[in-house]
Amino acid sequence: MTLLIKTIKELKEKVKEYKKEGLTIGLVPTMGALHRGHFSLIEKAVSQNNRTIVSVFVNPTQFGPNEDYDKYPRTLKEDLQGAEKIGADIVFSPSPDEMYAGCTLNNNYLTYVAPPYEYINKLCGKSRPNHFDGVATVVTKLFNLSEADNAYFGMKDAQQLLIIRKMVKDLNMNINIVPCPIVREDSGLAMSSRNNYLSQNGRKTALALSKTIFTVENLVKNGNIKDVRYLTDVALKLLEDTEVEYIEFVDYDNLENVSTIKNNTLFAIAARVEGVRLIDNILLEE
Amino acid sequence: MTLLIKTIKELKEKVKEYKKEGLTIGLVPTMGALHRGHFSLIEKAVSQNNRTIVSVFVNPTQFGPNEDYDKYPRTLKEDLQGAEKIGADIVFSPSPDEMYAGCTLNNNYLTYVAPPYEYINKLCGKSRPNHFDGVATVVTKLFNLSEADNAYFGMKDAQQLLIIRKMVKDLNMNINIVPCPIVREDSGLAMSSRNNYLSQNGRKTALALSKTIFTVENLVKNGNIKDVRYLTDVALKLLEDTEVEYIEFVDYDNLENVSTIKNNTLFAIAARVEGVRLIDNILLEE
Repeated sequence: MTLLIKTIKELKEKVKEYKKEGLTIGLVPTMGALHRGHFSLIEKAVSQNNRTIVSVFVNPTQFGPNEDYDKYPRTLKEDLQGAEKIGADIVFSPSPDEMYAGCTLNNNYLTYVAPPYEYINKLCGKSRPNHFDGVATVVTKLFNLSEADNAYFGMKDAQQLLIIRKMVKDLNMNINIVPCPIVREDSGLAMSSRNNYLSQNGRKTALALSKTIFTVENLVKNGNIKDVRYLTDVALKLLEDTEVEYIEFVDYDNLENVSTIKNNTLFAIAARVEGVRLIDNILLEE
Repeated sequence: MTLLIKTIKELKEKVKEYKKEGLTIGLVPTMGALHRGHFSLIEKAVSQNNRTIVSVFVNPTQFGPNEDYDKYPRTLKEDLQGAEKIGADIVFSPSPDEMYAGCTLNNNYLTYVAPPYEYINKLCGKSRPNHFDGVATVVTKLFNLSEADNAYFGMKDAQQLLIIRKMVKDLNMNINIVPCPIVREDSGLAMSSRNNYLSQNGRKTALALSKTIFTVENLVKNGNIKDVRYLTDVALKLLEDTEVEYIEFVDYDNLENVSTIKNNTLFAIAARVEGVRLIDNILLEE
């Protein structure tokens, strides 16, 4: 039985109980609208911990004023069923008021966790100025509330994952971050809750992202092409039916741009299809 | 025997050991140059916890470029003796490199904890722009490293105490903050490591601060004077031999200025004597 918990008080009581029994806790932070990508995280958490907490919270502080906070899909009933099937112990789904009590969601009255400028002024952070402050803050809150030993993050949000790991290191947090691979539809499309916004046609156009990822990977691996300018041109061509926001090749340690593919180079794309912002990425090796 | 620990690794090992034994931990974060004010915090921690950790760390990120980081008194040997006498179990005194490994102390590469703007654009924060970011960040690190149940802060740094409590609440940190009263010399001067900078004459001039505090308290309590403008004039007069930075009457819940004394009004002063920045304060009741 998966317990649906909506209040911090109740969550803390359960966590206290787990801790008293010496049980390990895994946390899977999500915004809900769970898909196979999330399920793979939950499965891993269940297999590695005595207890698994899945948080389902569309966090207002990580959305910009013109983003899709209001229309972001909310499917708590299905999320609960999905989490239950895999064996999650708790689905924690608080209201914004519960999470940010007394802060009136006004940044001037809220303590924030601010990731380093050099990690947020790039890739997705460029077009989403306060996004990663919001992410780091809510994730810190969830880490503290869950007292988790392990937390699970998908590699799809590669920049987010790097920022979270940096935060854990910089602030000496007592939690282990477990990165999990991108899960894709059979077509290659990376799983995303935002895929729900796409029409049938849009889903076809969106395949350009994964096609670009695999083409570039193949050029690097089998074609032995390391020149980033050339690879960027290839990517631009393949993405011509989409509205490209960025195509970046960066060192996945510090997000600095590289001009030649090295080990641990992140190739990342953001592009819009039918106005829907999609991202995809892959780690390349020299 | 008080253990002197200089590395994070060694501290974490001891903390793990304490936790395994189910012992409670008290943390007293200090910048060293311990005086009776600090000792009162350590005494309280020792009396309320199974184990007490005193951190001694002059934190570079909370000093401004023209402040006294380099000349701040460092008296680790005496601090250790003092802490030992009271029964502290650990003095944790890391180097800046140990605390900020891999961040090169460059803010652009460090994850920060940023207290709310409305709490830091006032009082001491006005003249010390990044001070409270530095404080909140290092305190978060120390909370995580020590896994303390209780942390002890002096009321002398009233704004710092409020900001820490707000941070703990906003980020759902699992720690209890214990406020401790200001400790004063017989003369009335509030204990401060920075008093060490003063000459004999300077110490006499510095008495204007505590004299102002007690005069205003007396006017409010026994004179039934509640008008902040009048009280400010009195304070200005009493502080005329010092270089006043601020004289403020604020609601101690949110640091907003009040025009009439209410319950929980913080009366706070910052003034320089011989170039040394001194602070003092008192909580007033209606």
